[in-house]
Amino acid sequence: MSILIFGHKNPDTDSVISSLIMEEFCRQQGIDAVACMLGEVSLETKYILDYLNVDAPKYLDKVEAGQEVILVDHNEFGQSVEGIENATILRVVDHHRVANFNTAGPLDMRLMPVGCTATIMNMLFKENGLTIDKKIATMMISAICSDTLLFKSPTTTKVDEDIARGLAAEFDIDIENYAMEMLKAGTDLSSKTDQEVMSIDSKQFSVGDRLFEVAQVNTADINELTATRLAGLVEVMEAKIANDGLGMFLLMITDIVNSNSLLVPRGNQAEIEKFEQNFNTKLENGQVLLEGVVSRKKQIVPNLK
Amino acid sequence: MSILIFGHKNPDTDSVISSLIMEEFCRQQGIDAVACMLGEVSLETKYILDYLNVDAPKYLDKVEAGQEVILVDHNEFGQSVEGIENATILRVVDHHRVANFNTAGPLDMRLMPVGCTATIMNMLFKENGLTIDKKIATMMISAICSDTLLFKSPTTTKVDEDIARGLAAEFDIDIENYAMEMLKAGTDLSSKTDQEVMSIDSKQFSVGDRLFEVAQVNTADINELTATRLAGLVEVMEAKIANDGLGMFLLMITDIVNSNSLLVPRGNQAEIEKFEQNFNTKLENGQVLLEGVVSRKKQIVPNLK
Repeated sequence: MSILIFGHKNPDTDSVISSLIMEEFCRQQGIDAVACMLGEVSLETKYILDYLNVDAPKYLDKVEAGQEVILVDHNEFGQSVEGIENATILRVVDHHRVANFNTAGPLDMRLMPVGCTATIMNMLFKENGLTIDKKIATMMISAICSDTLLFKSPTTTKVDEDIARGLAAEFDIDIENYAMEMLKAGTDLSSKTDQEVMSIDSKQFSVGDRLFEVAQVNTADINELTATRLAGLVEVMEAKIANDGLGMFLLMITDIVNSNSLLVPRGNQAEIEKFEQNFNTKLENGQVLLEGVVSRKKQIVPNLK
Repeated sequence: MSILIFGHKNPDTDSVISSLIMEEFCRQQGIDAVACMLGEVSLETKYILDYLNVDAPKYLDKVEAGQEVILVDHNEFGQSVEGIENATILRVVDHHRVANFNTAGPLDMRLMPVGCTATIMNMLFKENGLTIDKKIATMMISAICSDTLLFKSPTTTKVDEDIARGLAAEFDIDIENYAMEMLKAGTDLSSKTDQEVMSIDSKQFSVGDRLFEVAQVNTADINELTATRLAGLVEVMEAKIANDGLGMFLLMITDIVNSNSLLVPRGNQAEIEKFEQNFNTKLENGQVLLEGVVSRKKQIVPNLK
C-alpha cells in the first residue's frame, strides 16, 4: 500500500500543490507515495493544474488504522483526514502552529515560520540534492504566490519571496502576470451558489466560550461583488450564526489587486460593538474597508478578543 | 533577555550536550541564546565536560510567561521546564514522538527519526554553512555514542553512525576507546544514593489516563548492581508509585557491554500482568532479562499499552 500524502480539509492551493510536490520529492527518492486531497480543488488551484496539464490528486475521505501518511500544510487532527489518530504519520511539512497533534513514535517533522509549505519543500529538494524542473518550479511559485497573495500578505517572509523570485528568474516565468492571472481565476464566483462562496475558505475560532467564524473571499473588484452578491452572502451568514450559535460571523472580502479587505461582521450587538473596539473602527452600513488588511491569520484572528 | 536553550528534565548527555551545541549554532548566527539544563549533569556528561574543559550549562527551574525558548531533545511539556505552557517556543530540535505539545504560533521545528539530537544538529550546522571545530565535533560524537550506546542501540540509524565516524576520522578521534570510557564513567554509581540512581534517567509517560515511569540505569555488570543495590532501588520505586499515583514504575538496568537489559517492573497487579502480556514474557522474582533490549524509546515505550 502506497504512503498517502495530503493537506488540510477545504484544501487551498498550498495544500493541493504541496501534496503534488511532496509526491515528486518521494518519487525521486524511490519512495512509493501518492498525493491525495480532502476536498475539491478551488478555481485557483484548477487554474494551476490546467496550466501545467496535471491531474488533481484523488479524493480521500478517511484512512485505515496503520496507514502510512505524510501531512503537508497542516498538523491539527481537526483539520486532517478521518482516522488520522490511528494512522502512522511518517512526515509532516508545515508552517502553522502545532496543536491537537501527537504521534506514537518518532517522525520526520519539518515546520518553519514561513509563508508557505512549498517554500519548505523547495529547501527539502535542495538539501536532498533533488531535481526541480520547470513544472515543479511553477508549482512552488504558484503555492507561494497563493499563500502570500503575491508577497503582499504580512505572512510573507524574505525566504518565500527570494525562493519564488529565484525560481521565476531561473525558469523565465513572469511571476507578476502569472500570479495575478492565477489569483484572479480564484475570484470567479459566477458558477457558485452563495452557500458555496461562503464555504470556500471559512474557519471557526473559539475565544473562551465564544465561537466565531471568519470566511475569506478573494476578489478583484469589491464593489461589483458587494453589489451583486452581498445580500445573499449575509443571508447565509445569518443562518449559520443561528445554527452554530456563533457570537459573530465575519466576512472578509479581500481585494487581491489593491490589498484591502472589506469586513462585514454579523452577530449579536455586543459582539459587533466589541469588534469595533478591537479593530478601532466604526461600521457604516454594517461594513468597513480596512486598508492593507489581507491576512486572516495575522491581522484578524489575533484581534478576536 | 537571552533566548534560553534546554533539553528535558533529568538531563542525559544528549540533552546537555545538544544544548551547548545549539548555543554555538546560535552564536555563529549572531543570535543571543544561552544553554541551560533542568537538572544536574550525569557522571557520563561530566566526563565529557571535563574532557573538553567546558562548564556545565546553568541550572534552570522555571521560565516566565513570554520567555523565548529553544527546546532540544524533547517536546513533551511534561518533560520540560515549569512554565513552558506560557513561554514562546521559537525552535525545537528533537528525535522523539510528539505528544502533549502545542504552540500559539508558527515555529521552527526539526524532528527526525534518528538516534540522537546531536545528529540533527550536525545537519543544521552543515545546511547553514557553519563551522564545526574539534570541540563541537567531540560534543557531537559524545552525544551520538551516548544515545546509541556506541551504535548498538536499535535506535541507531546509518546517519548517526556515518556522522559520528566521519567526525572521528576528520578530527582523528579514537571513537571506540573514547566512547567506552565515557559510557563506563556513567556507570559509576558508588557516590550516589538510591534516590539519585533512580533519577539519573527517568521519564514519565501517559497512556490514556494511566501514568507510567521508566527509569534506565546503565551498568557494565548487571549482577553486581542487582546484588548490591536492587533492594534499595525498588524501595525508591515503591515510594514514587505511591506518591505520583503511577500505574507502573519500570526499572531498566542496561548492560552497555553486552547490550541486554534487566527489566524490573513494580506497580499494581493488573499493570504488571499487562506488562507481561505486552512484552510476551514472564517475570521471575519480579524481574526478567531481555536480550538485545537497550532502548527505552524503541523497545519499551511503544509497548506500554
